[in-house]
Amino acid sequence: MLDSVSAPARITCLGGGHGLYQTLCAARACQPSHISAVVTVADDGGSSGRLRRELSQIPPGDLRMALAALASHDEHGQLWSEVLQHRFGGNGALAGHAVGNLLIAGLYEVLGDELAALDAVAALTRSAGRVFPVCTEPLDIEADVSGLDEDPRIMRTVRGQVAVASTVGQVRRVRVIPEQPNACAEALAAINDADMVTLGPGSWFSSVIPHLLIPSVVSAVSESEALKVVILNLTPEAGETSGFSAERHIHMLAQHAPQLKVDRILIDSDVVTSQSERNHLARAALTLGAEVSYQRVREEDDRGRFTDRHDPTHLAAALKNLWEQR
Amino acid sequence: MLDSVSAPARITCLGGGHGLYQTLCAARACQPSHISAVVTVADDGGSSGRLRRELSQIPPGDLRMALAALASHDEHGQLWSEVLQHRFGGNGALAGHAVGNLLIAGLYEVLGDELAALDAVAALTRSAGRVFPVCTEPLDIEADVSGLDEDPRIMRTVRGQVAVASTVGQVRRVRVIPEQPNACAEALAAINDADMVTLGPGSWFSSVIPHLLIPSVVSAVSESEALKVVILNLTPEAGETSGFSAERHIHMLAQHAPQLKVDRILIDSDVVTSQSERNHLARAALTLGAEVSYQRVREEDDRGRFTDRHDPTHLAAALKNLWEQR
Repeated sequence: MLDSVSAPARITCLGGGHGLYQTLCAARACQPSHISAVVTVADDGGSSGRLRRELSQIPPGDLRMALAALASHDEHGQLWSEVLQHRFGGNGALAGHAVGNLLIAGLYEVLGDELAALDAVAALTRSAGRVFPVCTEPLDIEADVSGLDEDPRIMRTVRGQVAVASTVGQVRRVRVIPEQPNACAEALAAINDADMVTLGPGSWFSSVIPHLLIPSVVSAVSESEALKVVILNLTPEAGETSGFSAERHIHMLAQHAPQLKVDRILIDSDVVTSQSERNHLARAALTLGAEVSYQRVREEDDRGRFTDRHDPTHLAAALKNLWEQR
Repeated sequence: MLDSVSAPARITCLGGGHGLYQTLCAARACQPSHISAVVTVADDGGSSGRLRRELSQIPPGDLRMALAALASHDEHGQLWSEVLQHRFGGNGALAGHAVGNLLIAGLYEVLGDELAALDAVAALTRSAGRVFPVCTEPLDIEADVSGLDEDPRIMRTVRGQVAVASTVGQVRRVRVIPEQPNACAEALAAINDADMVTLGPGSWFSSVIPHLLIPSVVSAVSESEALKVVILNLTPEAGETSGFSAERHIHMLAQHAPQLKVDRILIDSDVVTSQSERNHLARAALTLGAEVSYQRVREEDDRGRFTDRHDPTHLAAALKNLWEQR
């Protein structure tokens, strides 16, 4: 790491879905020389879930979205980004399938290699970075959920990303199946070689914590010399993290990955304002070896109202701040 | 047309399916500066038919195959050609769909324009030429078929490309629905601007004759100053042209497009060897204003046996011969 540089040269972002999309947009705005996305493969819903079941592949949806986020800003890149994200409508066999999911699936069948398929799409979109699956076999999420029975002490097992994300109970713990899967070697290298590693925001139990259930990923993050930043969600999600405080989000990371060490936990300034709550958060962060940083990262709509998404420009400024003050 | 040049500079090939694929490979081997494919849109079977019905688009399969034939010979072009042609297997919702069909369909939905979608794929494959649908609305084929009843005089109507191609009766005449559709303007321009126009080989009633049921296409071919070459099939096809002689193939063209004028009819030397049959063929060709040329154009397998396909190298040599002797 060069202390004189005001932005990290190599950023590696871990996550999935819309949270990762916004983070990758922010990472691009930091203008690093290398961006890598390390993407969850636990989705079992929608187009991804259908392809996963039909073709026995890793679910492509989160990978596709990361590739779309990294597509060149020129006309060519934006056309292909739009095509990747486009979903067929109607009620037929293709309804709901994203074109990019089908393209990734086809490339994989032809090339026989997930990374080669993703690199081919990256070449097509003149990508600003590379996209790696966190592991090259599909994962299933299984959760211990309470509150599904009258007796709140009864814990039930809920299997599958969609089922976990939409449970009306309280998720206590998640596992991935198979347990302790092997990570993608190139994803580990991208974590190891980074100047900055981000984790989150995103669906906590299906896009963020699954990364931490792969032992070699936890080791790679903890041992990397990068500045490691957890980007906290702005709000609890209906379903899997309904009613979760910011503190509980952090505890969930420590609970699932006791060995995890990170440097900063980035929280929007407006999410937590009371000093007593901030004190609790500081203590929770310490269990991960981290300091909390409060910065304005939330997107506003065109009438100044807060949305539930991170604003890539604000988030980029916040990440650069963390880098300068490291 | 420059008489000193030993190959046509602009070649436009009309047809569909495997016949057009082989012809485009031959056209490339002539090393013209421009190649255009004008492609049938009457298919209603397989992946194309499913997409046509589900998405209300022109069937993409014949367009995709033409794009694959024209893909750059470099590694990049050949990868994408293979991906375009790759079909998903299994028994699921995607089984049988060619990746290129899905990509063309998605590009069309995003761009709202068939030609822009096809040009985007052509850019992707670093195409040696452009591919145009003969018209921008899907067509249906309807045939008058005899021999389906005990009384051979009874004529029945068979609708749809698959139904016509696989009928056990004898196809007497075909129509397209809607009748007298508008041709794609760029396809007409490609015919008008060409030095050489080819028609066929291919499924006579579903890939070749449908072009001739569009009045503006017949006019464009007949009035073009190009050298116009009909490339005859090597064998009758089971189903639609079962038992058809070479002469009957030619009569079918004249019957469906009495105004059609072409210059040469190219027939493999080994298909018609008897002088009396050749005399009949010469008379049939005259109804189209054409001379018959016999040349060796048939592919041989690696053990020297004839196949049912045209050999692109032989066909290119034959087309160059016709050009030099015009």
